[in-house]
Amino acid sequence: MSEELGIGAKKNDFGKWYLEVVRKCGIIDQRYPVKGFPVYMPWGMFITKQIISEFEKELEKTGHMPVNFPVVIPEENLKKEKEHVKGFEKEVFWVTHAGENKLDERLFLRPTSETAMYPMYALWIRSHTDLPLKLYQTVQVYRYETKMTKPLLRGREFFWIESHTAQKSMKDADAQVHEDTAISNVVLSEYLGIPFLLLQRPEWDRFPGAEYTYAYDTLLPDGESLQIATTHNLGQKFSKPFGIEFMDEKGGKSFAYQTCFGPGISRILASLIAMHGDDSGLVLPPHISPVQVVIIPIPVKGKEGMVEEKCREIEKKLPKLRVKFDNSSTRPGFKFHDWEMKGVPVRIEIGPRDIENKQVTIARRDSSEKVSVEEKNLEKEVSRLLDEIFTAMKAKAKKNFESRIMDAKTLPELKKGIEKGGFVRVNFCSLGKEGEKCAERVEKETKAKVRGRLTGKDENPSGSCVACGTPAKHSVYVARAY
Amino acid sequence: MSEELGIGAKKNDFGKWYLEVVRKCGIIDQRYPVKGFPVYMPWGMFITKQIISEFEKELEKTGHMPVNFPVVIPEENLKKEKEHVKGFEKEVFWVTHAGENKLDERLFLRPTSETAMYPMYALWIRSHTDLPLKLYQTVQVYRYETKMTKPLLRGREFFWIESHTAQKSMKDADAQVHEDTAISNVVLSEYLGIPFLLLQRPEWDRFPGAEYTYAYDTLLPDGESLQIATTHNLGQKFSKPFGIEFMDEKGGKSFAYQTCFGPGISRILASLIAMHGDDSGLVLPPHISPVQVVIIPIPVKGKEGMVEEKCREIEKKLPKLRVKFDNSSTRPGFKFHDWEMKGVPVRIEIGPRDIENKQVTIARRDSSEKVSVEEKNLEKEVSRLLDEIFTAMKAKAKKNFESRIMDAKTLPELKKGIEKGGFVRVNFCSLGKEGEKCAERVEKETKAKVRGRLTGKDENPSGSCVACGTPAKHSVYVARAY
Repeated sequence: MSEELGIGAKKNDFGKWYLEVVRKCGIIDQRYPVKGFPVYMPWGMFITKQIISEFEKELEKTGHMPVNFPVVIPEENLKKEKEHVKGFEKEVFWVTHAGENKLDERLFLRPTSETAMYPMYALWIRSHTDLPLKLYQTVQVYRYETKMTKPLLRGREFFWIESHTAQKSMKDADAQVHEDTAISNVVLSEYLGIPFLLLQRPEWDRFPGAEYTYAYDTLLPDGESLQIATTHNLGQKFSKPFGIEFMDEKGGKSFAYQTCFGPGISRILASLIAMHGDDSGLVLPPHISPVQVVIIPIPVKGKEGMVEEKCREIEKKLPKLRVKFDNSSTRPGFKFHDWEMKGVPVRIEIGPRDIENKQVTIARRDSSEKVSVEEKNLEKEVSRLLDEIFTAMKAKAKKNFESRIMDAKTLPELKKGIEKGGFVRVNFCSLGKEGEKCAERVEKETKAKVRGRLTGKDENPSGSCVACGTPAKHSVYVARAY
Repeated sequence: MSEELGIGAKKNDFGKWYLEVVRKCGIIDQRYPVKGFPVYMPWGMFITKQIISEFEKELEKTGHMPVNFPVVIPEENLKKEKEHVKGFEKEVFWVTHAGENKLDERLFLRPTSETAMYPMYALWIRSHTDLPLKLYQTVQVYRYETKMTKPLLRGREFFWIESHTAQKSMKDADAQVHEDTAISNVVLSEYLGIPFLLLQRPEWDRFPGAEYTYAYDTLLPDGESLQIATTHNLGQKFSKPFGIEFMDEKGGKSFAYQTCFGPGISRILASLIAMHGDDSGLVLPPHISPVQVVIIPIPVKGKEGMVEEKCREIEKKLPKLRVKFDNSSTRPGFKFHDWEMKGVPVRIEIGPRDIENKQVTIARRDSSEKVSVEEKNLEKEVSRLLDEIFTAMKAKAKKNFESRIMDAKTLPELKKGIEKGGFVRVNFCSLGKEGEKCAERVEKETKAKVRGRLTGKDENPSGSCVACGTPAKHSVYVARAY
């Protein structure tokens, strides 16, 4: 039974710690009898819904509208666009029967929705006045993942949002990609406190259906980089085969320019857990936590009634917050551990002495600090504290993230950096096809991948490629990739 | 092209009107190439999300927590509970392959989640302290519907919320059913203005896995009753085969008592459309409408700039509302029609004369009334008007609904009532198995079904059964059923 009290593994043993946290903190139950299909438990689902809702809010603010396309896609739709969705056939689940009947045409469960959506886009888009078309859906997607699955990080069913747009020009599509990065910045950095690098992927690593791909890469505690979202500028690569054409202002016909943006909600939840958690379990951003304040009575014999009454009174004094009064029969120490493990940002302890002094004792989850607060200042103080906690959490995550970005000049230096874990920045010859050989050499030496170059600013290195020694075009970021 | 201007069919030709409205108003696109799997368009999806969110809010207020169970369920799980889920095998879609591999065990897409959830409930529930367990999920479900499909009313993929609870006693389960009815009342009646009868289904018409079933039946304009939600008290019918057992306070073992509650979101959307719409198209409750106020400029040659500027100024004066300034190049009359059709509750017209008089012209969607409002009172007046509109919409729907509930004493009277459409209340011998023959006779004579008796109050009729003439136990409601 002692195993059940708190998290056994330390966070620096990340693989073990992570599995224990997602299970014990009520994020995911993996015992569902279909491999790679997890059950989202209440604590995890509540957080998931908040992440989703924040993305949806930002998408709607920027003029995206919600839609919902069916989960099943006819096999025929795959054939329309052989080149860019190549390989999907081997990655999808097939629905072949309904009731006792064999279907005339096989249907596959959406692995992503281009092939479901774009034939409809071709029906909807007629004129330049129909553009831009900016739609998103929040759904689960299905991939027959053959690598080892891991809860939230790699599964066969996972939550994501996919936004798909159509624009009049490449310039407008570029601007859309820019808008997506702004949305991600608000949600990932500001709302969730998850630092990331926005990297343009090398030619050889972009989505084949895209003109270019931006990826949002964060870091796991073991030093691996984790892609948590992508934005693709699809140009006309899909609009041509799917016939998404519009009449422009001058009466001419043109194929639309498209983008798609996909925040991987399940992976974002995983990185939230991994980024902020500690040896005791989850540490949740206050506005995300299903319970923001837990009130725990410290009863003394004969004074239980008085303590309980005061707890209920205090609960009512925080009407704007999600407060849990834990009046269960287990002992206070057990409750402390349990709510700490679940990441609740603030714990209020109330015992007879607190009542005498017209105060409560408040413990912070992030720093374990305890303070006494006068009852009359409670609401204001708790609200201030919650803000302070999140500010501290963000700063800590940022500092940690930045400390794991290093520079290297030579392959041996790079190798050493990668062994430490994190991103290593090096000079590199080219992210076009011609650089692929150097990337392979880097990977062979270090087991790490060239993840791409920072978007938005060109770092213009002076120096030569870490692999081939020719003049470098880019500073690139290398990391082991989950 | 004239067909595209507004709705051609009249609402009293409901079948035709409905199909035209869902298509032209951007609710559903049925051209997706898999039968019974519709695409939810932006206007329809926005409304759907609001209905979902209102239910979720009420569920969470009453202590339900969100979860998410996989869409695929192993065939094995169906076998655990043969009796109550009988027939499901013929109604489900089967996933048989993944990539190029045949699966060892077939998986079916959830038609409802009892068989996915309850084996997990058996793992989670150990002690009375784990109860009540109150969980819900918002998902799409899949049924291989062989009857004619109709958008939102009968499909093969549709949205619903399913809440599944486990309690310590039958009394607690009864109380849960009561709580579900209160939630429905808030969302259906108060929030959406959809009147319904809460009917206890006859024995022969309840879910076989339930001790009793309450159904929420509203009316379609053609007089058919439509079931939009159900609540089942499952008693121990599932907990026994699935082994959901707990240790009670005295150390004894007992099987849990369960309930499940399922608001059919897609059908609720259909009834929202059907209940409030009119010959011109949708009429949306203001708080639900994707656009709450549309501003349409009435330009006069040479004064276009001034009018546009004023429109933008007015738009900014309504910061709390979802406002659309329709500055497209079509003529005002076309815009009026279009936004009317889409159900936007309030239209603001602004022309040079309005500007001169420092006023705007406001047209109500529900009553077509027009009023002039002084600019300085705009925000207050619009907000008042929106409230007034919804109050009027609710009253109108209620009056209409109540006018379609009649009484009948004899079979011929009943038949006549049913021909008019709506519910007919009659005396009836019994809703137990012994009444089934009389129900069959009613159905044969009238093509209508005994839908059940009102819950909550026993109407204690004095008189005799409309079919067999023996003393009546209940007043029951008869209607044609969609």
